[in-house]
Amino acid sequence: MPKKTTIYDIAKELNITAATVSRALNDSPRVKEATKELIIETAKKMNYEQNKLAQALKSGKSFNVGVIVPYINSNFFASVIRGIEEELYPKGYHVIICQTHDQENLEIENITSLLNAQVDGILMSISNSNIENNTTFKNLLKKHVPLIFFDRKKDIKGVSSVTIDDFKGAYLATQHLVEQGCKRIAHLCNDRSLEIFQNRFLGYKQAILDAGLEFDDRLVVETVSKVDEARKSAQKLLNLNQRPDGIFASCDFSALGAIKEIKGNDLRIPEDICVTGFSNEPFSQFMELSITSVDQSPLEMGRIAANVFLDEVQNSAKIKSEKQVILAPELIIRKSSLKSILINQ
Amino acid sequence: MPKKTTIYDIAKELNITAATVSRALNDSPRVKEATKELIIETAKKMNYEQNKLAQALKSGKSFNVGVIVPYINSNFFASVIRGIEEELYPKGYHVIICQTHDQENLEIENITSLLNAQVDGILMSISNSNIENNTTFKNLLKKHVPLIFFDRKKDIKGVSSVTIDDFKGAYLATQHLVEQGCKRIAHLCNDRSLEIFQNRFLGYKQAILDAGLEFDDRLVVETVSKVDEARKSAQKLLNLNQRPDGIFASCDFSALGAIKEIKGNDLRIPEDICVTGFSNEPFSQFMELSITSVDQSPLEMGRIAANVFLDEVQNSAKIKSEKQVILAPELIIRKSSLKSILINQ
Repeated sequence: MPKKTTIYDIAKELNITAATVSRALNDSPRVKEATKELIIETAKKMNYEQNKLAQALKSGKSFNVGVIVPYINSNFFASVIRGIEEELYPKGYHVIICQTHDQENLEIENITSLLNAQVDGILMSISNSNIENNTTFKNLLKKHVPLIFFDRKKDIKGVSSVTIDDFKGAYLATQHLVEQGCKRIAHLCNDRSLEIFQNRFLGYKQAILDAGLEFDDRLVVETVSKVDEARKSAQKLLNLNQRPDGIFASCDFSALGAIKEIKGNDLRIPEDICVTGFSNEPFSQFMELSITSVDQSPLEMGRIAANVFLDEVQNSAKIKSEKQVILAPELIIRKSSLKSILINQ
Repeated sequence: MPKKTTIYDIAKELNITAATVSRALNDSPRVKEATKELIIETAKKMNYEQNKLAQALKSGKSFNVGVIVPYINSNFFASVIRGIEEELYPKGYHVIICQTHDQENLEIENITSLLNAQVDGILMSISNSNIENNTTFKNLLKKHVPLIFFDRKKDIKGVSSVTIDDFKGAYLATQHLVEQGCKRIAHLCNDRSLEIFQNRFLGYKQAILDAGLEFDDRLVVETVSKVDEARKSAQKLLNLNQRPDGIFASCDFSALGAIKEIKGNDLRIPEDICVTGFSNEPFSQFMELSITSVDQSPLEMGRIAANVFLDEVQNSAKIKSEKQVILAPELIIRKSSLKSILINQ
């Protein structure tokens, strides 16, 4: 690879320090305007603009927007991203994506990578429930780079968010199990240090209590969004002295794991145990035994998040009020939970 | 906090100047290879951590690598990306991802965005079969930014590629249908201006001819990788005077569409029509009627593509010979095509 022109080359050319070059290219008020102009001029001459950084600096924009998600291969996140792209492309923005694999350190490294890539804003679904305590994240907030959370969010001053009403989605799914005659409804939950999963748990619990059923915390088992892991967790539920007759899983991958385990134990779905998931992943519909799930309008979520970004990037005021958009969930009833005749699929 | 190792500590340890240490760590040609190795070895032993940003500024490197795929929400592409990440993260590189939605103009805009984001290289699966005629793409080649194709590739001088043997994968899938007793085997193909789909068609055709069956081009119907579209295409096949008794689809989404259409016509699978897909998407395994498919070792493909990138980025020679790595496909036989007893799932 041929060597690119660096700030050191420019510094050498002008016989000044690299720090001054860096400050000038970053539009620091500590460098005189005349010096700044000379440096930008020289950088251009030396093809520093070959990487279009100079152009970006002129407008102060790269027209790249970063999106960070836990996983790209979930239909939910992929659909949110499509929604974001559909709104931003016509406005001249491009979307670059990073995934965290739900690892906190990768999340921070992704933020650094995107900032290095000069993005104009970051839209993210968080993997780290303590993100606000991280130094890199604090710096990001200080820089006033527009930041929008979607789905997995934290309430942080100055950060807008777009979510669905997870409490209500979980409530609807659990209430549906009650209506199907389930008396011992278990919950396969995900990491409850993340708000969305805590809210789904609370929605489940409230629906249990409102139905006059007993809340039994032995029926709440934590798992991760992976089929095999959820299978092991479902096994714990099936091994209870009094096994559940309904399972509300906080994601479709967990619901699928539960279904596999139930079938592996020669129990029938929905006759012996009803199952509902969350997210309305396409496979939940494709399967012969289609899975009841909560739809989160991911395309819509992405579109709204993109528009919140556009509002923020066009708003030059330094002090911003955050927006909190909450979408309504929709329960899609399918075979995995429906004992009666009508099937909505 | 323990004190961090600095280049001064390393210099002291080796009784050389800090400048030499710095040059060696930045891979300067002014330091002899043997000295460089000794310094790097010592830095490692002393747990020296290079400041990445400073390193990036000095070397002109961003340590960001761009990956372009048609769709992120295909398990195949997501797995290739995971393989790439697994190899590159330990080397200090970060992966930023763009998708084209199979649109040629977006592919070019993605390349521009990634170059603006200062990536050190691009790994991509192409969406445009005429990409080599595009000006932006020609400029990319001129810049000697390392470029590696995976899966969907074109033979272009100087560009390495990692693919599977698509001809063989298709041959195996079709041969398996012949072995199941199918006599009229149809092919749901994708856009054959892309090499991989053309090769899958050719593998299918060769297997038909080698089995002594008649090749009938009315049995070859083009579709796109979407379930509903494939359903419509499968309908054409079922409406033929002599309908097929086997369908080889060039992707799993098409296979799923075909399965839905066959069932919608009250025909049985595999008794009336056997179906095989391609890519081994997880849903092909999850379904009650699991789908026979060709596994493409996507993780392995990603890992190898990443290593080809690392070779290229470390190779300072201007003139490069391209590498072509071709992986072997594996047929995974499941219920959708197996009339006999044994099921490998």
